[in-house]
Amino acid sequence: MRDAAMMEHRIREVRITPVAFRDLPLLNTVGVHEPFALRAVIEVLTDSGLTGLGETYGDAGHLDRLRLAGAALVGVDVWHLNELARRVRAVVAGDHGTRGHGMSGMVTGSSTADRVLSPFEVACLDIQGKALGRPVSDLLGGAVRDRVDYSAYLFYKWAGHPGAEPDHWGEALTPDQIVAQARRMVDEYGFGAIKLKGGVFPPEEEVAAIHALRVAFPDHPLRVDPNGAWSVETAIRVGRELDGVIEYLEDPTTGIEGMARVAEAVSTPLATNMCVVAFDHVRPAVARSAVGVVLSDHHFWGGLHRSRTLAGICDTFALGLSMHSNSHLGISLAAMTHLAAATPNLTYACDTHWPWKHPEDDVVVPGALRFEAGAVPVPTAPGLGVELDRDALARLHERYLSCGIRERDDTGYLRRFEPAFDPTAPRW
Amino acid sequence: MRDAAMMEHRIREVRITPVAFRDLPLLNTVGVHEPFALRAVIEVLTDSGLTGLGETYGDAGHLDRLRLAGAALVGVDVWHLNELARRVRAVVAGDHGTRGHGMSGMVTGSSTADRVLSPFEVACLDIQGKALGRPVSDLLGGAVRDRVDYSAYLFYKWAGHPGAEPDHWGEALTPDQIVAQARRMVDEYGFGAIKLKGGVFPPEEEVAAIHALRVAFPDHPLRVDPNGAWSVETAIRVGRELDGVIEYLEDPTTGIEGMARVAEAVSTPLATNMCVVAFDHVRPAVARSAVGVVLSDHHFWGGLHRSRTLAGICDTFALGLSMHSNSHLGISLAAMTHLAAATPNLTYACDTHWPWKHPEDDVVVPGALRFEAGAVPVPTAPGLGVELDRDALARLHERYLSCGIRERDDTGYLRRFEPAFDPTAPRW
Ligand SMILES: [Mg+2]
Ligand SMILES: [Mg+2]
Repeated sequence: MRDAAMMEHRIREVRITPVAFRDLPLLNTVGVHEPFALRAVIEVLTDSGLTGLGETYGDAGHLDRLRLAGAALVGVDVWHLNELARRVRAVVAGDHGTRGHGMSGMVTGSSTADRVLSPFEVACLDIQGKALGRPVSDLLGGAVRDRVDYSAYLFYKWAGHPGAEPDHWGEALTPDQIVAQARRMVDEYGFGAIKLKGGVFPPEEEVAAIHALRVAFPDHPLRVDPNGAWSVETAIRVGRELDGVIEYLEDPTTGIEGMARVAEAVSTPLATNMCVVAFDHVRPAVARSAVGVVLSDHHFWGGLHRSRTLAGICDTFALGLSMHSNSHLGISLAAMTHLAAATPNLTYACDTHWPWKHPEDDVVVPGALRFEAGAVPVPTAPGLGVELDRDALARLHERYLSCGIRERDDTGYLRRFEPAFDPTAPRW
Repeated sequence: MRDAAMMEHRIREVRITPVAFRDLPLLNTVGVHEPFALRAVIEVLTDSGLTGLGETYGDAGHLDRLRLAGAALVGVDVWHLNELARRVRAVVAGDHGTRGHGMSGMVTGSSTADRVLSPFEVACLDIQGKALGRPVSDLLGGAVRDRVDYSAYLFYKWAGHPGAEPDHWGEALTPDQIVAQARRMVDEYGFGAIKLKGGVFPPEEEVAAIHALRVAFPDHPLRVDPNGAWSVETAIRVGRELDGVIEYLEDPTTGIEGMARVAEAVSTPLATNMCVVAFDHVRPAVARSAVGVVLSDHHFWGGLHRSRTLAGICDTFALGLSMHSNSHLGISLAAMTHLAAATPNLTYACDTHWPWKHPEDDVVVPGALRFEAGAVPVPTAPGLGVELDRDALARLHERYLSCGIRERDDTGYLRRFEPAFDPTAPRW
């Protein structure tokens, strides 16, 4: 009899479970977060009896593609990631699916195939790790750090969802409230870097918030991300005001050409998770020197190995590397942490929406992931190091069924309360 | 007790054995191959009792660095390739070692750290594969082809080494003799692509040889590689003559700037293993659109994983990908084959010097590697799929000790017979 690690591990079944978890009214330039965020939990089961986990967007269009892809993956050996990718590409060929990517208009143009591939690849790595008795970080070359730094991700927000009581984070619409939010988040999590999601108020108000943060946290690297809300001229003006104040300016304007014009005029490095979100965008962005930092995100860059390839590209082309986040659960946090730990040139603190999640809203058994001094210790248990909590999965799936949300729509939700709201960029 | 695959596998000992094997008087633009080619055979032994193999250059300067690096690797877990690379980089920091790279002046500027890292990384992958019961190709995402195509690598050559009998391949100094060489090599190995090593005779003679090959092999893709022997003007003239005749023109001239000027004027894609031989060269080459095809070589690109990163870069920047070869033994052929099998965009037939080697000169047990219809079936046994023949290793090491060669020196060897020989590029 061959031992567990040496057995074949072929995909026998793929289970895709959409879930919803409570979210807070976080404002961004295209609208506001709805009361529930959607995710899909992927379970990949092998004929050898192992299970791997993946997590991705839960929007209806994406779920359709995941189901098509999942069915096509039966029989694939979990080590044959080239074949996994080939089958996913075949299934989504010709599907430019801009709908259902779960990013509410803020990330468009990412590769449909890479977005669909990602959770399956992560699940296969989880299985590989379990078969080997090694953490996923070992499958990526080994952790170069035993803790991964994350940033305090500040949002302007309403006190609570309209019609509901104020939530546990309360209102944040002014510089003072943003500083208070940062104070609490830094106190509770120990974060050593701070990011403000901007693009919500006129730039001068957001600049005032950054300056207030600078005073309150003199040693914390700061970032601001208006998600392309500014014209090139506004971006240059604001960028110059913030030169020397922030470590990078994230997507001040949209498009490679606009970013290139801002980059020429501003000293602060420009970062992006909007104009470079797929391998196809790297070449034109490099040609125009449009960005200085790429925010990777394994959910749309095709999984952990392809994110490592992106890291190699950034290293080769002297681009900085940081990490993007959407609202996510513990499976994604584990995957993000393994990836960051095994990526030497990922030197910025990664983004995470983790503090905005109700602690009891998750699908993994508590305890495997924790924040200490702003960092998540890299799980050392086999695979991703997280275990599915079936009761919790059932609860969050029930909530998905009952919540009524099927596609993330920050704009539509905001328009229920401000019918004239227009997210068209540039807003300023 | 934990099973074999789940055990830790820490490096306990590194053995480095220089070997020499018979080589033929193959001509190139810097000289002629000496009677013996040098290689180093790397054995990495783990505390768990596994052994992994690597193969690299055998030149004295390189051997010194290998020994320093090998000593620094004791204790590293074979899955921790980031740590492996970190230690190698620390050992060779500040060593720009242009001597001892085993490429006789034709490849300069490759990364010393990547050159030293490569055989250790390959050996670790061999161990990983053995522990898992899987071929190395599986560790690279799985083979996308079960056979790897190689090209017939033609050389101008003398009938035999001066003072010795003619060798079994005989003289090749004219177009007819080159066609005869190609005929025999294609007949014996079944190669479906043909490469001529040029830079030896005035370009018009080599163009005549290419045209003769085109007539004799109307359906074989052809390549010519003068190793930078031509001026930009000559390269443009020859390149235009060969437009539509060859699949790519390899290093017609030296340097990124010169190659860029040729690329602007010639339709045939330019390939290189001279002006882009390290990650540092990619960015300026892309900026200048200097090359259309990169010839990867895991021996100087830092091993198999880093070669996969290079493949990802080529895919991202719309560069073709082929594979370079130096005189090598079976360990390298196995590694090259696994890498090529698991690299979807490696679509050109790979180079190999294999036919020039005496079949009985090797360090691996015969039978694991064979050519069928111009291709090597990808080994499916665990790890690289080749086994060290200790008697053969001892024999080839004895030959290293007795042969008197310590650094490859094609130029010095040719000058023994043509004292006025000057390899300075451009020769034409
Ligand atoms: Mg962003
Ligand atoms: Mg060459």
